[in-house]
Amino acid sequence: MIVIMKHHATTQEIAAVVQHIEALGFKAHLSQGEERSIIGVIGDERPVEPEHFELLAGVERAVRILHPFKLASRDFHPEDSIVKINGISIGTSKVIVMAGPCSVESREQVMETAAAVKQAGGHILRGGAFKPRTSPYAFQGLGLKGLELLREAREEFDLPIITEVMSPQEVTLVAQYADILQIGARNMQNFALLHAIGEIQKPVMLKRGMMSTVEELLMAAEYVLSHGNSRVMLCERGIRTFETSTRNTFDINAIPVLKSLTHLPVIADPSHGTGKWELVTPIARAAVAAGADGVIVEVHCDPEHAMSDGAQSLKPDKFAAMMSSIRRVAEAVDRTV
Amino acid sequence: MIVIMKHHATTQEIAAVVQHIEALGFKAHLSQGEERSIIGVIGDERPVEPEHFELLAGVERAVRILHPFKLASRDFHPEDSIVKINGISIGTSKVIVMAGPCSVESREQVMETAAAVKQAGGHILRGGAFKPRTSPYAFQGLGLKGLELLREAREEFDLPIITEVMSPQEVTLVAQYADILQIGARNMQNFALLHAIGEIQKPVMLKRGMMSTVEELLMAAEYVLSHGNSRVMLCERGIRTFETSTRNTFDINAIPVLKSLTHLPVIADPSHGTGKWELVTPIARAAVAAGADGVIVEVHCDPEHAMSDGAQSLKPDKFAAMMSSIRRVAEAVDRTV
Amino acid sequence: MIVIMKHHATTQEIAAVVQHIEALGFKAHLSQGEERSIIGVIGDERPVEPEHFELLAGVERAVRILHPFKLASRDFHPEDSIVKINGISIGTSKVIVMAGPCSVESREQVMETAAAVKQAGGHILRGGAFKPRTSPYAFQGLGLKGLELLREAREEFDLPIITEVMSPQEVTLVAQYADILQIGARNMQNFALLHAIGEIQKPVMLKRGMMSTVEELLMAAEYVLSHGNSRVMLCERGIRTFETSTRNTFDINAIPVLKSLTHLPVIADPSHGTGKWELVTPIARAAVAAGADGVIVEVHCDPEHAMSDGAQSLKPDKFAAMMSSIRRVAEAVDRTV
Amino acid sequence: MIVIMKHHATTQEIAAVVQHIEALGFKAHLSQGEERSIIGVIGDERPVEPEHFELLAGVERAVRILHPFKLASRDFHPEDSIVKINGISIGTSKVIVMAGPCSVESREQVMETAAAVKQAGGHILRGGAFKPRTSPYAFQGLGLKGLELLREAREEFDLPIITEVMSPQEVTLVAQYADILQIGARNMQNFALLHAIGEIQKPVMLKRGMMSTVEELLMAAEYVLSHGNSRVMLCERGIRTFETSTRNTFDINAIPVLKSLTHLPVIADPSHGTGKWELVTPIARAAVAAGADGVIVEVHCDPEHAMSDGAQSLKPDKFAAMMSSIRRVAEAVDRTV
Repeated sequence: MIVIMKHHATTQEIAAVVQHIEALGFKAHLSQGEERSIIGVIGDERPVEPEHFELLAGVERAVRILHPFKLASRDFHPEDSIVKINGISIGTSKVIVMAGPCSVESREQVMETAAAVKQAGGHILRGGAFKPRTSPYAFQGLGLKGLELLREAREEFDLPIITEVMSPQEVTLVAQYADILQIGARNMQNFALLHAIGEIQKPVMLKRGMMSTVEELLMAAEYVLSHGNSRVMLCERGIRTFETSTRNTFDINAIPVLKSLTHLPVIADPSHGTGKWELVTPIARAAVAAGADGVIVEVHCDPEHAMSDGAQSLKPDKFAAMMSSIRRVAEAVDRTV
Repeated sequence: MIVIMKHHATTQEIAAVVQHIEALGFKAHLSQGEERSIIGVIGDERPVEPEHFELLAGVERAVRILHPFKLASRDFHPEDSIVKINGISIGTSKVIVMAGPCSVESREQVMETAAAVKQAGGHILRGGAFKPRTSPYAFQGLGLKGLELLREAREEFDLPIITEVMSPQEVTLVAQYADILQIGARNMQNFALLHAIGEIQKPVMLKRGMMSTVEELLMAAEYVLSHGNSRVMLCERGIRTFETSTRNTFDINAIPVLKSLTHLPVIADPSHGTGKWELVTPIARAAVAAGADGVIVEVHCDPEHAMSDGAQSLKPDKFAAMMSSIRRVAEAVDRTV
Repeated sequence: MIVIMKHHATTQEIAAVVQHIEALGFKAHLSQGEERSIIGVIGDERPVEPEHFELLAGVERAVRILHPFKLASRDFHPEDSIVKINGISIGTSKVIVMAGPCSVESREQVMETAAAVKQAGGHILRGGAFKPRTSPYAFQGLGLKGLELLREAREEFDLPIITEVMSPQEVTLVAQYADILQIGARNMQNFALLHAIGEIQKPVMLKRGMMSTVEELLMAAEYVLSHGNSRVMLCERGIRTFETSTRNTFDINAIPVLKSLTHLPVIADPSHGTGKWELVTPIARAAVAAGADGVIVEVHCDPEHAMSDGAQSLKPDKFAAMMSSIRRVAEAVDRTV
Repeated sequence: MIVIMKHHATTQEIAAVVQHIEALGFKAHLSQGEERSIIGVIGDERPVEPEHFELLAGVERAVRILHPFKLASRDFHPEDSIVKINGISIGTSKVIVMAGPCSVESREQVMETAAAVKQAGGHILRGGAFKPRTSPYAFQGLGLKGLELLREAREEFDLPIITEVMSPQEVTLVAQYADILQIGARNMQNFALLHAIGEIQKPVMLKRGMMSTVEELLMAAEYVLSHGNSRVMLCERGIRTFETSTRNTFDINAIPVLKSLTHLPVIADPSHGTGKWELVTPIARAAVAAGADGVIVEVHCDPEHAMSDGAQSLKPDKFAAMMSSIRRVAEAVDRTV
């Protein structure tokens, strides 16, 4: 941490800051410039926030030097982490595709979609049983019944399952059915849920909050990692900006940025990242070109009658076309699908 | 809902949209302009999302006509709702002040702060026992012990208590100690928690998510209201923008906007809304001038040693000065404090 | 400037950065921590951007220590600057009100509005002759004819005039008619225009760009100041955020932040800051409560037929009510109107 | 346009809105729903803004039906526009690469960089002679001398030139040297400049403002087109968001969105879109994968000593590697480079 003093800070104020730093167990390193004095805080600053120093008299601001995350950092774990699920490895040169309906709606719907996903070469089946919905009047998911349908599809088509868990008390239940637990964007900083997920041994895919920074995403991963669960994947799914022509702005920069900051696999969600099915394939291609380790997309056999997210769902034929399209791009960057 | 067709939409496409609208139980109303046809969807559109129509062939976009919330709307409840807590009424011409430490840290700290709050004329004591923290390495709150200390201060100083609840399974416990339950900004769309809060009879203050629109805040309130709890207050606490000179951007516009859209009381949080104690008093004054029904601020007797949020906490003397400052502004807008 | 090295930076990389710093004429100050080395750049860093160091091998990032502005800074000019215009002083305890139509449309319109502004106690008449419009198909202003009408109103009602100038070649012309030149939000970083404005001796009001930071606003002021024009006022007029319930988000925090960073007067524009006339008065009150030195609002006698910005214009009676409303708030913060 | 009335709007209010619509020369079409009445405005609504109706008594809001742009719209010009410059066609299946230094600094620098661009297969040479800089203390470009150096490089290496023009009075001068005029992001809504550019016959590349929506970018293009210059290209160069790990957020979604809304060619600028040279190649690949018609990147032989934007400049060897990398991706989407 660097503490930057105000232009007119007095020597007493500087001395008080030095004393405060030392009382916290750090060493202080004073450097007096022509216009400003700055004080380095030497030691592991991670448990302390810059704001902690900003209220001391004469301080203008404080700036972190270290990233606040450690277990998630590539600094301490230079090689890529690989998450293995029933023989599928995520985080290698093979790009993994997760696909399926937004919500599980019926036995027929799940089976038909799973068949289409399998046939087109998808690797993992996605589907929501517990659904976070903005409106209390919207369809909230089939719950346990939905989990059972996903299990049935899993066995019939030999596809691992990823599904969302929304609250700490459901973690144990959902973990009995799912191969990967998904933490949704709105729950990325639901710390009680992150804590609960950290204590089980099940792979988890953590979706970036729609207005969360890359650093906050990595801190959410740090929560899970620090409670003992090391099988964490990150998912870029679009952020909220001033632009209204798409539902979200897919942050393509975040893919190479995350790959350089962390060893965890990075998945792209072009369905939520755009909100429109016509944009899903070009953005899926872009994500693979930028270095994503996997793609998660919504597929529905009858999106006109989907109970949620129809507008961003691909029909099976479009999904098959997307698969061959991203396969070519993957090869152009020396990967496979 | 209005469905806007593409420029070159065919008559078959238009007919299919009309048929789809009618199959959902709505009436369709077609209006053919020179460049675009538009189709009105007549009926209560609330359970349907505009995206639902946007995937039909020939559709450009769909626009809501009705607000998606109903119980929270002033349209159906024109007079102000007043939330009563132990003889204190929130939502009247009297501006209510909630104050106290970010985190409960010790018996001495709570008692000393509560005394200062009471003496300066504060009405409600705030304090966190369960703390949502961005870092797993930061202080996470005293938990149950913190609740007990709050209860002690409550009885000694005759101050109702507001404290945060972070997960559905803690609702019953926290409700035994608190007079008002706070839902934090990061949990504004934690629907499992909103559902649980909706089923108890305890006032709740819902903080706007830093990435949430005014409409989404009202939809979160709708969740609580629709599950049976009518004593809901809203809190503007700053949103995330591109500006970095303050921790958040306090959305002063949201105060009169909320007062016109909803009958629920609106509280302002200038501590989180700015992140810097020097800015708390001017923004508290601004919030009262703009029509806030209450103010919630962080007060700490020794902010240099606070375990969280010291930088935005007022010392007791600054808090007393803020109280007299907002009292004068309240009078200038025909209110009291 | 502080240069923060990567975790695994080699001693050669560190030496090369030190050498690079010294070659630029600065002193380098190395501090080796446990996880990261950091190098202080001692000297006036203003002409150098942090990015300049970020491409050197082994560098993670660079952080400014000094504000990039100097003439605009309160550090070097602690007392408030007062801008005097025909006997009116801006930047004192008296809050100045500028009011008038968005666009000058006709002689009758200007005269009628000017009379209303004068009668209600407004101090300065605003009105646009050259109009920046998002659409090439919208009314673009009366140009020179508009300037002449403003001069006529100026003389008849003894009200100084503020009007916008949009391009460098119009500066001389507009300066012959206006008492204050306005730089619009879209031109805040039109550096050719800032340069031209800096070379004349005429007060200027610089509006914050809708997505410009406080620091960028101060850098725009620095352009004008550094070219020799010291009579600069700043105007907060709302920023662009994700929120759509208002046209812009008025950044109330920016008012006390600017007052602490700079000696220049700060004006608030609640008309553009909200985009809705119903919100103008509460936000004007809030701005005064937060410390604004002045308010600029749009007033129109017949907003239903205004050629631009009708939705955010106050009618004369509403304007008069706003004046008495902000007068009471000004008194509550020991100022006058 | 659709005018949505308030819940409690009276029949008199509705009648007044209808009358107002008709007085503007439109037809009004009333539709009375259970909760809200809505009124369609029939006719070419482009010159009118929704705000125009929002101040009428009883109106809640107004929503555009038509896009406000027409000449730029694919609706009226379904086939792709191709911009031809000295035998190079932009907007075909061949992806065009523009490359060169941020600023022209010296004869040697331009010649050396131009040689590297040519050798690696770049098609157009970029370089700034007039530089928009945030700080008045930073290097402002060589001006006319820079243009002459660009012309020299143009002739020596047979590379067309793209360079920025910053103010209306420089348009004629810059047009004598440049093959393509660039309008920078900060000038995207400098309407005086757009007007001047519209009146000459020279291709122009319009960069999206960092705070501008896709619709506003198309409206800026409409300005140029409506004044008679039809050779317009658009450039996505990153937008400003809350994320701070990159200088800007490259809006990858904007590429397919623009390709569907307009017939104009779309160029991607991954240098400004990321601000870091390590990210330029992955984002260039992503842009090509998403459908960009061209890429513009900063190349510098000695970025450590560049006078601007060194951090985002590629060295010649990295540029050559980028060229072969995007060539492979282009082929994967059935294009060439």
